[in-house]
Amino acid sequence: MTEPLRIALAGLGTVGAGVVALLDANAELITRRAGRTIQVVAVSARDRFKDRGVDLSRFAWEDDTRLLAEREDVDVVVELVGGSDGPALALARAAFGRGKGLVTANKAMLAHHGLELAAAAEQAGAALKFEAAVAGGVPVIKGLREGAAANELRQVYGILNGTCNFILSKMETESRGFDDVLHEAQAAGFAEADPSFDIDGVDAGHKLAILASLAFGTAPTFAAVEMTGIRHLLAADIAEAAALGYRVRLLGLAESGVSGLFQRVHPYLVPLSHPLAHVTGPTNAVVAEGDFVGRLLFQGAGAGAGPTASAVVADLIDIARGVTGPPLAMPSDMLARADRADAGDRRGRAYLRFTVEDRVGVLAEIAAAMRDAGVSIESLIQRGSHAEGGVLVAIVTHEGPERCVAQALERLRGSQSLVGQPMWMHILD
Amino acid sequence: MTEPLRIALAGLGTVGAGVVALLDANAELITRRAGRTIQVVAVSARDRFKDRGVDLSRFAWEDDTRLLAEREDVDVVVELVGGSDGPALALARAAFGRGKGLVTANKAMLAHHGLELAAAAEQAGAALKFEAAVAGGVPVIKGLREGAAANELRQVYGILNGTCNFILSKMETESRGFDDVLHEAQAAGFAEADPSFDIDGVDAGHKLAILASLAFGTAPTFAAVEMTGIRHLLAADIAEAAALGYRVRLLGLAESGVSGLFQRVHPYLVPLSHPLAHVTGPTNAVVAEGDFVGRLLFQGAGAGAGPTASAVVADLIDIARGVTGPPLAMPSDMLARADRADAGDRRGRAYLRFTVEDRVGVLAEIAAAMRDAGVSIESLIQRGSHAEGGVLVAIVTHEGPERCVAQALERLRGSQSLVGQPMWMHILD
Repeated sequence: MTEPLRIALAGLGTVGAGVVALLDANAELITRRAGRTIQVVAVSARDRFKDRGVDLSRFAWEDDTRLLAEREDVDVVVELVGGSDGPALALARAAFGRGKGLVTANKAMLAHHGLELAAAAEQAGAALKFEAAVAGGVPVIKGLREGAAANELRQVYGILNGTCNFILSKMETESRGFDDVLHEAQAAGFAEADPSFDIDGVDAGHKLAILASLAFGTAPTFAAVEMTGIRHLLAADIAEAAALGYRVRLLGLAESGVSGLFQRVHPYLVPLSHPLAHVTGPTNAVVAEGDFVGRLLFQGAGAGAGPTASAVVADLIDIARGVTGPPLAMPSDMLARADRADAGDRRGRAYLRFTVEDRVGVLAEIAAAMRDAGVSIESLIQRGSHAEGGVLVAIVTHEGPERCVAQALERLRGSQSLVGQPMWMHILD
Repeated sequence: MTEPLRIALAGLGTVGAGVVALLDANAELITRRAGRTIQVVAVSARDRFKDRGVDLSRFAWEDDTRLLAEREDVDVVVELVGGSDGPALALARAAFGRGKGLVTANKAMLAHHGLELAAAAEQAGAALKFEAAVAGGVPVIKGLREGAAANELRQVYGILNGTCNFILSKMETESRGFDDVLHEAQAAGFAEADPSFDIDGVDAGHKLAILASLAFGTAPTFAAVEMTGIRHLLAADIAEAAALGYRVRLLGLAESGVSGLFQRVHPYLVPLSHPLAHVTGPTNAVVAEGDFVGRLLFQGAGAGAGPTASAVVADLIDIARGVTGPPLAMPSDMLARADRADAGDRRGRAYLRFTVEDRVGVLAEIAAAMRDAGVSIESLIQRGSHAEGGVLVAIVTHEGPERCVAQALERLRGSQSLVGQPMWMHILD
């Protein structure tokens, strides 16, 4: 195994440039650990002449990304183009068509086309590896696929989007509103100009679909992920949660049960006794609960050039070492097509917040809707005014089926007493 | 790869019985993930007829553990006998001598003989895997060896002994003394009848030597691990630490620098802002700091039948999948023999606690010793009495070289003013 592993790099944004920088900086170490050198042969990106802070003149250049997969001198293609379809998917298909391995950070592509790509890789006898697609530099794909492989997993959940966790941490420690913190995050480069993929939970949903597939032996089914983001969260919600002993975190949670596969991205109240309550800033953390191993936690930087490049190169080192095996932990034809479990059947406690008109009878209307839907109230706080304005009613329910909470909210829909949408958060118990 | 992977199991204590139970319980799942069945062929233990809660009549029995390695029908030997030398080491050598793989949970054996065993495995072309040797079910060996493989690691540290963390958590939440909690832990089976390996830091030292080898590309050198346990810790120390915003944790910490390899097990003050401050009970947690990936955290159950069996079987699944590679992350002949770094050169803040006679001049004597050794005091608290009795003087120093603190303590050695040994804890900043 003294032949170098020859790679082609598609996409030279932050992460692509980071991969080149990492392979340069730690070349000797990587060679020792991988048993052979990992050598960039060719690259492709949108703009050939942009300064990316790394010397690209050493590498062959392809204007057409897909041609990287055609090159005879390339063993593995690294796809860092992004996007669920388009050039990334075309490149992936082309790579397997030529029997070449693929390393990718593309969570959207895997969430949508994971099964097809895993099957194509298996058929080609080629590697498909994607550690960088979930939780940046944290080796959680490896942790589930290999580390926890002996376990029947009951649940996998975690903080999967660093931008949201950064915003939530800031709102919490500085008692600031969502829009305010989002703008700061955008200015600082922690959030995109169009932040909707992050703040509406779509990015976390992509990652969750991948984790669920590995954890439960099911095909990735992004279409079945229920997603609610943090856009409508108030500083007052975070303050109420804190008063109750919780911190608000956007969690992706997947669970496999008799009624099927449940996948949801949603804001949760996390008790201070849980490690996820102490994950702050743009950090990611994933918990997996196994029947023998108990609770495993993996935590680290969820994004950024360095951490993501670290995961990409870890995959390359695995390939260089000759480590292969089915991409989705078992052969793709063994993956189940799980039914989508009905969220209504889930039991738990809920936090409900209403912003209401300050007039007689409003509280009675809300309480009646809860009663009529069979929702039992554990605590209720009404506050005359809060930073964002308006009268706030915050309810914590006793444990019960989510169906009842949904019915109560349905009964209140269109009520003249309510200002804006109610906020519903689940409580992680 | 449809042939079963045939294993022999040496040692049928809690973990050995757990491995059999796990292979039974999750057999179908494991076969799907491993691509072949994992089949116990033969077993060996001290007492053939003891009831272990699992049916052993299916397996061949060997009275002489070493004969497991001689069997033609065995591919991999699982060593769960324990002990750094003796039967465990003999079995490991015999396994490689016959070209068979070895999976072990034996941290002591690896800490002492890791280099020899890795070389023997490489020469035999056989696997040597030991995920269960560090942090029980937590895949931290894999995390360092593969997940973080692209990084130059600066530091690796963590909570490596569940018994100590259980005791410290109890002392903290219940304000109880060390002996009191230790006896309860022994009664509950969380601590051994002879607890010295755990409470004096030796067990954590074994694990640290293994982590350091993987992290820094050095041969495991247990002899160079400095170890101080928690035996002399007072409830008052934990209370003082809490008042300062810290929790006390027994950490193993290894660092590679220009002056060599530093390895130490010691009680630390961990700030509440650090994730390790929130690790309670018999949980283990390991932090690795890499040049590209930043800070990674791996956390989970550090011991027990289920978690340890989970790690053992994960290793077996890797072997069944054909995953090999050098046991210590790079070929053993590339591992450096690092010099032992001098702790005196390290800079940091320290917590010092003296129990003193209640008479004139004691404080002046301590303060003078600090001054004369060049130790700058950040804060000092003297308390007239505490639960364990006596007058307590607790000092937090400014950042400075550890050499100076050691000199100050040396100056005070034998002083008539001091009752018992001073307590020195490092502060994790």
